[in-house]
Amino acid sequence: MAERPTGLKATKGIELLTWGTPNGVKASIILEELKAAYGKDYTWQGINIGENIQKEPWFTKLGPNGRIPVIVDHDQGGFAVQEGLAILTYLTRHYDPDHKFSFTDPLDISRAEQWMAWQHGGLGPMQGQANHFNRFAPERIAYGMQRYTGETERLVGILDNHLKDQEYLVGNKYSIADINSFGWVNALRFSGVDIDDFPNLKAWWERILARPAVAAGLSVPSRSPFGNDAYAQRLQDDKEFAEKEKTLRDQIQAAKEKYGYKYASP
Amino acid sequence: MAERPTGLKATKGIELLTWGTPNGVKASIILEELKAAYGKDYTWQGINIGENIQKEPWFTKLGPNGRIPVIVDHDQGGFAVQEGLAILTYLTRHYDPDHKFSFTDPLDISRAEQWMAWQHGGLGPMQGQANHFNRFAPERIAYGMQRYTGETERLVGILDNHLKDQEYLVGNKYSIADINSFGWVNALRFSGVDIDDFPNLKAWWERILARPAVAAGLSVPSRSPFGNDAYAQRLQDDKEFAEKEKTLRDQIQAAKEKYGYKYASP
Repeated sequence: MAERPTGLKATKGIELLTWGTPNGVKASIILEELKAAYGKDYTWQGINIGENIQKEPWFTKLGPNGRIPVIVDHDQGGFAVQEGLAILTYLTRHYDPDHKFSFTDPLDISRAEQWMAWQHGGLGPMQGQANHFNRFAPERIAYGMQRYTGETERLVGILDNHLKDQEYLVGNKYSIADINSFGWVNALRFSGVDIDDFPNLKAWWERILARPAVAAGLSVPSRSPFGNDAYAQRLQDDKEFAEKEKTLRDQIQAAKEKYGYKYASP
Repeated sequence: MAERPTGLKATKGIELLTWGTPNGVKASIILEELKAAYGKDYTWQGINIGENIQKEPWFTKLGPNGRIPVIVDHDQGGFAVQEGLAILTYLTRHYDPDHKFSFTDPLDISRAEQWMAWQHGGLGPMQGQANHFNRFAPERIAYGMQRYTGETERLVGILDNHLKDQEYLVGNKYSIADINSFGWVNALRFSGVDIDDFPNLKAWWERILARPAVAAGLSVPSRSPFGNDAYAQRLQDDKEFAEKEKTLRDQIQAAKEKYGYKYASP
């Protein structure tokens, strides 16, 4: 078992403090992409959020919000960056000189920012609340279950529609805009949303998942069992799990019916 | 009564589609600041979100998420920007040549981005959910009331702590980082959070509220009755309102006690 982190451990390059969540993998995926593209190495430490390491003073000095991921750039005097969106822009601004994952045209820069902000303020928080009410809250509250599962579906519908005629979110090029949303889309089944209902989005998800750097990023600190692929596999392999998940899906469906939910997007 | 908007009405400059919400005023405040600083004029249309104008096809062609605010830059071929964070960065990137409200140092650029992302993914969505459960949901659900009011307090505590030794969020200079959070802080009382409990934040809020361009921005399309000042005034003037609000505060307090809520930040 890994020792509990108590402070930074690197003295140069980028140090990543993270956990294998949909937000955490934003940082590890871009760092793996930069490693593959430019040979830029990085150090990471796993911050077990179940143990509240991210609330300890040494951590909140770096990331005052007390949330992962946080990066520290030892080559910039120990400059710390919190918030996934800001980590993606910081790393490409400083370490993507050929703009392999970012943009130079000012309108493309804005397009990428818009999709990243859309995820950061919409899909992430709302899908996070769906997870909370569907799985983690101390009681199953039908109103919350249908509200946030439904809002996640509305948001996912927007991505699916945008991807109708293009392979990636901005400029027909894989970029930080895609990386920013990928982790959440990769957890849709876990959140109670069937990605098969959104074929353009599913094709985009598979396209990104096939990248070796994405696979590497998803393994920092260790591959989550909540990704769409692992989740679907477990449904097949584990009958007890499949039955519990069927019960949950029925609860979500009943909650939707109770409140007259109808899918609509936007 | 204003006619229901059915499309864009300007042909040059910036056209703002907005409503007087905490997100809406991000755009109108920066546009008023740019007008005061550089004489840059803009056009606006009020998009009554209660009438779902933001869900109509002409609107979602510009802002696919179906939410206000959206800006259209007629001087950039009708380029449209959605998401408050992206509107603030777009407008300063293109129309703040002296960086009066933005930054040139790459680390300050990142600091501003971090606080903006923090608001966009945290304070905004969570305070929005507090408003929903405290006021707009069809039933009062104690679990949701205490969860989101409490999370808003946690987040506000982070801002208050950050402002302990400085007047503004980044570089001791009023900027888009401040504007981005201002609208939500300006509605804290309405959301069930007492801004008097956060003295550094309250001083920051008053400092920004005193700016003429902020007052002008808050009046587009019309000043909200939910700002901290208007809300406090109405508590004094309107006994019936004050009694209803007292009942709500008691409900929130009871919800907190029911679930053993204790204030903690971060």
